[in-house]
Amino acid sequence: MTDGTATARATAWLSCLADALAARDIGAAVALFGSECYWRDLLTFTWNIKTMEGHEAIIRMLEATLAATAPSAWTIAEDATETDGVVEAWFTFETGVARGKGHLRLRGDRGWTFLTTMTELKGHEERRGVTRENGVAHGASRDRLSWLERKSAHQAALGRAVQPYCVVIGGGQGGIALGARLKRLGVPAIIVEKNARAGDSWRNRYDSLVLHDPVWYDHLPYLPFPDHWPVFTPKDQMGDWLEAYAKIMELDYWGASPCVGARWDETRREWEVAVDRPEGRLLLRPKQLVFATGSYGPPHMPKVDGAETFAGELYHSSRYVGGEKYRGKRSVVVGAASSGHDVCADLWEHGAQVTMIQRSPTTVVKSETLMELGFKGLYSEEAVAKGVTTEKADLLFASIPFRLMPALQIPLYERIAAQDAALYARLDQAGFLLDWGQDRSGLMMKALRTGSGYYIDVGASDLIAAGEIKVRSGVELRALKERSVLLSNGSELPADLVVFATGFGAMNGWVAQLVSPEVAAKIGPNWGYGSGMPGDPGPWRGELRNMWKPMAQEGLWFHGGNLALSRHYSVYVALQLKARMEGIPTPVYGAPDGPGVAGAD
Amino acid sequence: MTDGTATARATAWLSCLADALAARDIGAAVALFGSECYWRDLLTFTWNIKTMEGHEAIIRMLEATLAATAPSAWTIAEDATETDGVVEAWFTFETGVARGKGHLRLRGDRGWTFLTTMTELKGHEERRGVTRENGVAHGASRDRLSWLERKSAHQAALGRAVQPYCVVIGGGQGGIALGARLKRLGVPAIIVEKNARAGDSWRNRYDSLVLHDPVWYDHLPYLPFPDHWPVFTPKDQMGDWLEAYAKIMELDYWGASPCVGARWDETRREWEVAVDRPEGRLLLRPKQLVFATGSYGPPHMPKVDGAETFAGELYHSSRYVGGEKYRGKRSVVVGAASSGHDVCADLWEHGAQVTMIQRSPTTVVKSETLMELGFKGLYSEEAVAKGVTTEKADLLFASIPFRLMPALQIPLYERIAAQDAALYARLDQAGFLLDWGQDRSGLMMKALRTGSGYYIDVGASDLIAAGEIKVRSGVELRALKERSVLLSNGSELPADLVVFATGFGAMNGWVAQLVSPEVAAKIGPNWGYGSGMPGDPGPWRGELRNMWKPMAQEGLWFHGGNLALSRHYSVYVALQLKARMEGIPTPVYGAPDGPGVAGAD
Repeated sequence: MTDGTATARATAWLSCLADALAARDIGAAVALFGSECYWRDLLTFTWNIKTMEGHEAIIRMLEATLAATAPSAWTIAEDATETDGVVEAWFTFETGVARGKGHLRLRGDRGWTFLTTMTELKGHEERRGVTRENGVAHGASRDRLSWLERKSAHQAALGRAVQPYCVVIGGGQGGIALGARLKRLGVPAIIVEKNARAGDSWRNRYDSLVLHDPVWYDHLPYLPFPDHWPVFTPKDQMGDWLEAYAKIMELDYWGASPCVGARWDETRREWEVAVDRPEGRLLLRPKQLVFATGSYGPPHMPKVDGAETFAGELYHSSRYVGGEKYRGKRSVVVGAASSGHDVCADLWEHGAQVTMIQRSPTTVVKSETLMELGFKGLYSEEAVAKGVTTEKADLLFASIPFRLMPALQIPLYERIAAQDAALYARLDQAGFLLDWGQDRSGLMMKALRTGSGYYIDVGASDLIAAGEIKVRSGVELRALKERSVLLSNGSELPADLVVFATGFGAMNGWVAQLVSPEVAAKIGPNWGYGSGMPGDPGPWRGELRNMWKPMAQEGLWFHGGNLALSRHYSVYVALQLKARMEGIPTPVYGAPDGPGVAGAD
Repeated sequence: MTDGTATARATAWLSCLADALAARDIGAAVALFGSECYWRDLLTFTWNIKTMEGHEAIIRMLEATLAATAPSAWTIAEDATETDGVVEAWFTFETGVARGKGHLRLRGDRGWTFLTTMTELKGHEERRGVTRENGVAHGASRDRLSWLERKSAHQAALGRAVQPYCVVIGGGQGGIALGARLKRLGVPAIIVEKNARAGDSWRNRYDSLVLHDPVWYDHLPYLPFPDHWPVFTPKDQMGDWLEAYAKIMELDYWGASPCVGARWDETRREWEVAVDRPEGRLLLRPKQLVFATGSYGPPHMPKVDGAETFAGELYHSSRYVGGEKYRGKRSVVVGAASSGHDVCADLWEHGAQVTMIQRSPTTVVKSETLMELGFKGLYSEEAVAKGVTTEKADLLFASIPFRLMPALQIPLYERIAAQDAALYARLDQAGFLLDWGQDRSGLMMKALRTGSGYYIDVGASDLIAAGEIKVRSGVELRALKERSVLLSNGSELPADLVVFATGFGAMNGWVAQLVSPEVAAKIGPNWGYGSGMPGDPGPWRGELRNMWKPMAQEGLWFHGGNLALSRHYSVYVALQLKARMEGIPTPVYGAPDGPGVAGAD
């Protein structure tokens, strides 16, 4: 509920913080926070993505950053709300070089969570609304160039006579969202993509693929989907949208142009990036290089004894393009996360005999249930009607420190388990191994920790429960024979097709291939926040590894994630690149993640 | 200003009207209106576009329509405002078959202007927001077709195995805006366009062309331009936008497919439409045929003596594609409205010698001034900031009866004349003939009456004032010789190029070419509202002739106008077609305009 008291309390608290920070009185500032407290900063103080947990961490951060940041103009932006004793408020503020937006939660009269995010650089604002371009210089002129002539000249020069400030490797949703932000900020960038057209990374997938996340969660920046857009976008429609979007936003998008290598030139402090254009190899020399190659690295393909003797087809799920030719064939799918389920269902729909090999337990949630219980508050028609815009939803999600997330997720999965108890009982009966994550925090935490081990059910689970898709659980694929697979429990399954839905490596796998194994090792893997859960070893970091922030290699960035993360975090990648291009000082607080040592804070 | 009293008065008035209409008490209803009063209806009562002026006209309309319309649920939609004694309010209402939105103005406690518009048909609402499609049928199914498979099957069948309900001739902004509305309403429609790609009608124009209207006025339905879009869209950017839009909205858009003829089959009460597809001629059989061929008919090309002896180039401005090859050439442009000015300026920019032949006076307004004084209230960043959305601006403009428009426009042009007095003095000095329309109501009224005789100055006027573009005024082109033109005042001008910027005929000129001269004669021309001004003969009609409403030929429609009119009135064309397709009774009140007789009231 909204009430005046909540607003007054938030205003008073923020005013005290403003005064303390203005006086550079770190002790007074920190005293405003409760003993359990979190300050999450996206660039404004730290030029990093960083969560400070507790008084000591906040003090250390402010000691290092406060003078240079020079924050001011802290203002409550709209009426605060109070729920169960927690006051929540939105605010705006400025630093010496930027404007920011933030969110705070008070417990009693003390700060509990505090989020500060950068929205724009002063003097380098995007031109939109009242500051948009005119589009024509009125008055006649004999050296006027038309929009098309200017565009053609720009395209002819870029990457040849004129070097881009930035090269983005990968033109899927991540590269496109980032490209749009960079374009609006005036950062010259080329997106290089191996497929011919924007959107092909979706089009090339198997026919029945449909996004598993709903439309409200999937908007790109600046140009939201029109309001008839389906809840779950079919993959070819998504491909067409991305292609239209890249054109409308006038991205410098080079299709059919794989990056084949990149080298950091330490002397010139720039990259040399080799790109295979249809007309031949070209060397680009950008200052910044972004890997926007998806969420993950190269496909993970286990070595299996006897693979060379197998007479059927054998490949990774990333190469699966549809079950048309497998009608009546005996197919074995290794892996029981999203790809495994999707491939199994698609094969079944095309009339194949399907067996899933489930090596470890999976978190399964029905799509409808996840929409109803998980998404509705932030990303839904109901949320939009309540004024929770996509931007607000993104910031609200960002306002929850990683430390607090599991406790908020556990009750959600208890409700889900109760609501769909019948399905889970049937899956259990069919021999399918279910779990909710080691701490029972469910699907999203698995995604953030390892990006694997879950399935948003859009139909495959019912096929498993009904025995239409057979499942062999708790076993590994041990070896292949000419027409069969051997499992670790000694059983043998006839097979004409084996699909390894065994996931992907980390993004630095691409760095190893394109730059060097040494640089890949230096920066380390991405995802995970040091939760100590399987696949996400400690020590605790409190932020996702290496995503959207400075890494141990100068001028190198990872941008990726699903559409929602690509949308939201592209702001921060773009602002970091823009600031560096403009020569704005960007002192980074906190060491890069590196190969696996503890991050200093 | 907004005040409670205004809202209370509007609420009371609307409530009285609701009661009177519910009681079918026409006398009581009409008594609520002042002696000067206007009721403009867009479909809800009349299934027509019709303005009733005065008590008698309202009474006749209600006598004919009230029982069948069965209006109800009249509700003030937001706080009313009062300015200079006039209360303004928005309201919603329903009829037996539709929902509507309206606007009223009270003077004292009596109705002055009253607008009723249809927004949707009950039971046939567009699927958007909460009712959007899901995009996937969850659960596995062996006869599932993917989005792409369904789309491909639809495209293969449409126009061959399956006839569209509607064919739209012309795939410019008009056809595309209407096509999007029809798609969302589920009315099968094919847009046939002679150019290869959507947007080519803009791309094929001369290089320097930029829209003369600002971005806020130019949005298409459903998918507004992103907020960095330039104020004045360059023509190629507009072309790319239209192409992307047609794809995103999944229009059935047939490029490179000119319509070559159409015939009304009286027995089957449907059209036979011949379309030249790249693979050969195809006959389509739609129930409805829409001409969305622009605002006008075929180019108007005066017969001139000696044209066959002229050794230079001679063509209509619609064929002008740029001045590249005319550097240093002596060029004569006949006509001093928008096209004449644009062609002159483009030739000058390319280094040609340019003379404009001005046959009659022109209304000239600087673009910046028109933006500042004319557009700002309804279509501008300021208007958006005040909550005047594009939809509201469209309805506010529609709420002004044609009878009242000139009086509102005259003071605007007095301000414009004062503000840019220096320019007008210089143009006068250069021999250019200026006017403000016969009743001094300016540019927009000229546009509505005849679509000609004005220029929104984006640079050519200064060239004329400076003598860079020569002007010969008050003369006609009398004849052509081998290397010169002869004017009606006896003078002779050397010429390598003659461009006739002499405008276009009415849209029924296309009907004459594609259907028959008889049908063209039966329906009559479009534009003009019977103002009695030059080019727009009486008697008074009070609505634009033949635009967006039933005509004297069953199943035939005109849709067109600039982007703003194409956007707004496409709603009403689409609803009229949808209602007919669904078999909803659409009793039309008022006779069609016809060749030139007086319309019934």
